[in-house]
Amino acid sequence: MIIILEENVTEKQIQRITEKLVDKGFDIHRSTGASHTVLGVVGNTQSVDTRDFEVLEGVHEVLRVSEPYKLASRTFQSENSIVKVGKVKFGGKKIGLIAGPCSIESREQIKKIARLVKKTGTKILRGGAYKPRTSPYSFQGLGEKGLKYLQEAGKINNMAVVSEVMDRMDIIPALKYTDMIQVGARNMQNFALLKELGKIDKPILLKRGMSATLKELLMAAEYIMAGGNHNIILCERGIRTFENYTRNTLDISAIPILKKLTHLPVIADPSHGTGIRDKVVPMARAAIAAGADGLIIEVHYDPDNALSDGAQTLYVAQYQELVKEIKIIATAVGRTI
Amino acid sequence: MIIILEENVTEKQIQRITEKLVDKGFDIHRSTGASHTVLGVVGNTQSVDTRDFEVLEGVHEVLRVSEPYKLASRTFQSENSIVKVGKVKFGGKKIGLIAGPCSIESREQIKKIARLVKKTGTKILRGGAYKPRTSPYSFQGLGEKGLKYLQEAGKINNMAVVSEVMDRMDIIPALKYTDMIQVGARNMQNFALLKELGKIDKPILLKRGMSATLKELLMAAEYIMAGGNHNIILCERGIRTFENYTRNTLDISAIPILKKLTHLPVIADPSHGTGIRDKVVPMARAAIAAGADGLIIEVHYDPDNALSDGAQTLYVAQYQELVKEIKIIATAVGRTI
Amino acid sequence: MIIILEENVTEKQIQRITEKLVDKGFDIHRSTGASHTVLGVVGNTQSVDTRDFEVLEGVHEVLRVSEPYKLASRTFQSENSIVKVGKVKFGGKKIGLIAGPCSIESREQIKKIARLVKKTGTKILRGGAYKPRTSPYSFQGLGEKGLKYLQEAGKINNMAVVSEVMDRMDIIPALKYTDMIQVGARNMQNFALLKELGKIDKPILLKRGMSATLKELLMAAEYIMAGGNHNIILCERGIRTFENYTRNTLDISAIPILKKLTHLPVIADPSHGTGIRDKVVPMARAAIAAGADGLIIEVHYDPDNALSDGAQTLYVAQYQELVKEIKIIATAVGRTI
Amino acid sequence: MIIILEENVTEKQIQRITEKLVDKGFDIHRSTGASHTVLGVVGNTQSVDTRDFEVLEGVHEVLRVSEPYKLASRTFQSENSIVKVGKVKFGGKKIGLIAGPCSIESREQIKKIARLVKKTGTKILRGGAYKPRTSPYSFQGLGEKGLKYLQEAGKINNMAVVSEVMDRMDIIPALKYTDMIQVGARNMQNFALLKELGKIDKPILLKRGMSATLKELLMAAEYIMAGGNHNIILCERGIRTFENYTRNTLDISAIPILKKLTHLPVIADPSHGTGIRDKVVPMARAAIAAGADGLIIEVHYDPDNALSDGAQTLYVAQYQELVKEIKIIATAVGRTI
Repeated sequence: MIIILEENVTEKQIQRITEKLVDKGFDIHRSTGASHTVLGVVGNTQSVDTRDFEVLEGVHEVLRVSEPYKLASRTFQSENSIVKVGKVKFGGKKIGLIAGPCSIESREQIKKIARLVKKTGTKILRGGAYKPRTSPYSFQGLGEKGLKYLQEAGKINNMAVVSEVMDRMDIIPALKYTDMIQVGARNMQNFALLKELGKIDKPILLKRGMSATLKELLMAAEYIMAGGNHNIILCERGIRTFENYTRNTLDISAIPILKKLTHLPVIADPSHGTGIRDKVVPMARAAIAAGADGLIIEVHYDPDNALSDGAQTLYVAQYQELVKEIKIIATAVGRTI
Repeated sequence: MIIILEENVTEKQIQRITEKLVDKGFDIHRSTGASHTVLGVVGNTQSVDTRDFEVLEGVHEVLRVSEPYKLASRTFQSENSIVKVGKVKFGGKKIGLIAGPCSIESREQIKKIARLVKKTGTKILRGGAYKPRTSPYSFQGLGEKGLKYLQEAGKINNMAVVSEVMDRMDIIPALKYTDMIQVGARNMQNFALLKELGKIDKPILLKRGMSATLKELLMAAEYIMAGGNHNIILCERGIRTFENYTRNTLDISAIPILKKLTHLPVIADPSHGTGIRDKVVPMARAAIAAGADGLIIEVHYDPDNALSDGAQTLYVAQYQELVKEIKIIATAVGRTI
Repeated sequence: MIIILEENVTEKQIQRITEKLVDKGFDIHRSTGASHTVLGVVGNTQSVDTRDFEVLEGVHEVLRVSEPYKLASRTFQSENSIVKVGKVKFGGKKIGLIAGPCSIESREQIKKIARLVKKTGTKILRGGAYKPRTSPYSFQGLGEKGLKYLQEAGKINNMAVVSEVMDRMDIIPALKYTDMIQVGARNMQNFALLKELGKIDKPILLKRGMSATLKELLMAAEYIMAGGNHNIILCERGIRTFENYTRNTLDISAIPILKKLTHLPVIADPSHGTGIRDKVVPMARAAIAAGADGLIIEVHYDPDNALSDGAQTLYVAQYQELVKEIKIIATAVGRTI
Repeated sequence: MIIILEENVTEKQIQRITEKLVDKGFDIHRSTGASHTVLGVVGNTQSVDTRDFEVLEGVHEVLRVSEPYKLASRTFQSENSIVKVGKVKFGGKKIGLIAGPCSIESREQIKKIARLVKKTGTKILRGGAYKPRTSPYSFQGLGEKGLKYLQEAGKINNMAVVSEVMDRMDIIPALKYTDMIQVGARNMQNFALLKELGKIDKPILLKRGMSATLKELLMAAEYIMAGGNHNIILCERGIRTFENYTRNTLDISAIPILKKLTHLPVIADPSHGTGIRDKVVPMARAAIAAGADGLIIEVHYDPDNALSDGAQTLYVAQYQELVKEIKIIATAVGRTI
């Protein structure tokens, strides 16, 4: 941590700042420049709130030298982490695909969709059982029964399955029925949930909050990792901007940035990231072109009558076409599918 | 709901759209204009996803006529709701003040702060027991023990108390020890939690998510109200913008807008809304000048050594001074304190 | 235009609203629904400020049926516009590439760069002569002399050239020396400039403002087109969000959206869109994968010593590699280069 | 400037970075910590692009110690600047008021409004002659003729007048007819214009761009000041956020922040900052409560028939009422009006 002092700082103020630092157990290295005096703070400053020093008199600015996350950082582990979900490995040369409906609507529906997406070579099935709906008057999901149908559809088609939990209380059923547990965008900073997920060893699909910085996303991963679970896949799913033509703005640049900052695999969700069906395909292609390790996409045999998010759900034929296009793009970036 | 069709829509497309609407049980009123044909959709469209129709061929745009929230709306109830917390009534002529430390740190600390803020006439004490910290390595709160200390400090000083819950599992202790339950910004769309809070009758302090629109805030209130609990106070606490001098941008304009859209009381949290101590006072004054029904402010006898958020916490003397200034401003807007 | 009235609107209020509409020469079509009365407004509402009606008593909301832009709209012209710059056609099957340094630094520099990028098949050279620098203490460009060098470098290498103007006063030299005139992001709503550019027939490269909505970008194009100049290429170059790891967030989704809303060609500027060299290549690939008609990229033989924007400028070898990758991606989206 | 090196930086990389710094004429001070090595860079780094060093291998981060603006900074001048417009002094104890219509529509209109607002004690008249309209089909202002009417209306009522210029070409008439020249939000980074305004000595009313950071606003002021004109009043007028209930989000917190960072006077424009008439009054009060040095407000005797921005324009009676309320609030913050 570096503390830059005001140009007109007094010796007394410096003393007060120094004392506070020493009190907290830090070593200080003082360097006097032409205009500014700078204090280098040595010690474990990871849990320090930099603002505690910014408000002291005589302080101009406080800067962190180390990132506040550690386990998630490339500095900590330089080679890519490989996260295995069923038979699919995320983070290596192969691109991983996850597809399925927004909501599990019935045993028949999820079985049928599983069979259809399986034909494209997709090996992981998605489906929501607990639905975070903005309106209390909308379909809220089938709950545990839905998870059962999902598991069944996965087994029949030899696919791994992933589904979202809403809070700590949903973890037990999710452990029983799924191969990967999804933390939705609205829960990215549900710290009670993150802590609990750190105690299990199932892979976690951690979605970026819709107004979260990349640093905050990595801090959320750090929460899980600090508990002992290092099987995390990060997912870019769109951020909120002033543009309201799309529901969210899928931040494609998050992909190469995250790949540099962390060793964890990074995938994209162009379905939620755009919210509009005909924008899903170009944005899915863009994500792969930018270096994503995989995609999670909403697919339904009858999106027009889906119980949720039909407008952003691909028809099966569109998804098949997309997989073909992605195969070509993958070669341009040295990947396979 | 109004569906505006494309200029070059075909009769066949109109038929398909109409059929889909009739299938869902709506009545349709067709109006043919010079350039556009418009379909008026009559029926309960509250739980319709407008995008389901936007993706149909021939559709230009789909517009909601009614707001998706109902119970929270001024249309539903034109006079102000009064929410009573202890002896304080929010939503009437009097401005309500809530003050206290960010975290409950010890029995002594919370008792001492309670006594000090009580002297300014403040009748509600705040204090966090479960802390949503962005770093897993930071102080995480005293938990239930903290709630006990809070209740005790409240009783001794004849103050009502408010504290935050992190998810459904924290509701039981919160019911036991507090007079109002706070839903933090990160939990504004924790729908499982909101539903549960609809089943109780204790007042809820619902904070706006840091990237939530006002409509989403009102939908979150609607979730609680739909369950039967109408005792909700809304709280503006800063939104995320590109400006990073302050932690958040306290959206003062949200206050007069919310007061128009809803009958629920609206207060402001300038401590989290700015994140910097010397900005708390001017922004607190601004909130009252803009018509807020109250304030929630972090105060500590020793902010420099607070275990969390010290940098945005007022010294007791600053808080006393602020209360005086607010008294004057209140008269300018026809209120008292 | 559609005016939705309040549920409790009085007949007198409706009369007042109607009179105001009739006064302005509109026809009104009234439709009474179960909960809301709706007024359909017929006539040319393009220059109406909808807020003028929103503030009237009894009005709930005012909605535009037609877009405020016309000439730029796909409704007005369904087939793609082809804009020719030198021998390159933007908007057709072929992807167009523009490359060169941020600033023209000397006659030798621009000639050398032109020769190098030409080898990759790039046929349009970029280079800034009037530089919009955020600091008054930074290099401000060579001015007209720079334009002369640019033209010379273009001629020698048989390349068309493009450069940015700062305001109306720069148009005369730009007309003389360049083949396309660029309007920078900060000038997207410099309406005096846009009007003037409507009077010439040289192609205009119109960059999206860093906080402009897509509708505003199209309105800026409309300004130029309304004057008679329809030769416009739109350029996505990054928007401002709360994420500050990159300078801007390149909004890749703007590409497929614009391609749907307008017939004008759409290109991307990943250099300004990211501001960091190693993010330029993945984002350039992503733009093509999402359907862009071209790219404008900063390239220099010695970015480390460039007088401006060196950090976001590609080395020549990186650019050559990128062109190869783009060729593969182009085939995946049915394009050539 | 401080350069923080990667944990695993090599000695060779450090050498390369050091050489580049020495080449540019800087002195370097190296400090080796437990985990990171840090280079302190001494010399005038004001015009350095920090990214030029961020892209070098072995560099973790580059941090500025000094602000990039100097003349505008409180460090440069600790006491408030007083800017005199007519007889009004901005920046002292008294709050300055500017009022008038959005557009000058006719000689009669501006004269009538001047007379009406004068009665409230307002001493500066505003009115637009060159209008930056988002639609080419909207009223574009009366031009120089409008300025003449404005000056006349000012003289008759003994008021100073302010009007906006669109680019460099409008400066000459503005110098002739006005007492203060306004730079609109869309022109905040029109650097050619700013440079030109640095050469004159008339006061400049500089509005914050709608997506500008406060640092960028201060850099824009620096542009004018670097040319020699220090008579600048800064104006907060709303930023663009994801919330679209209001046109813009008036950033009230910008007021106390700017007052700390700079010695220049700071006023607020709640008319453009909200875009809705009934939000102008509460936000105007909030601005004064937060410490603004003044207000600029749109007032018209007949807003319903104003040629532009009628929806955000106050009726005269509303403005009179507002002035009364502000008088009370001013006393709470130790000011007068």
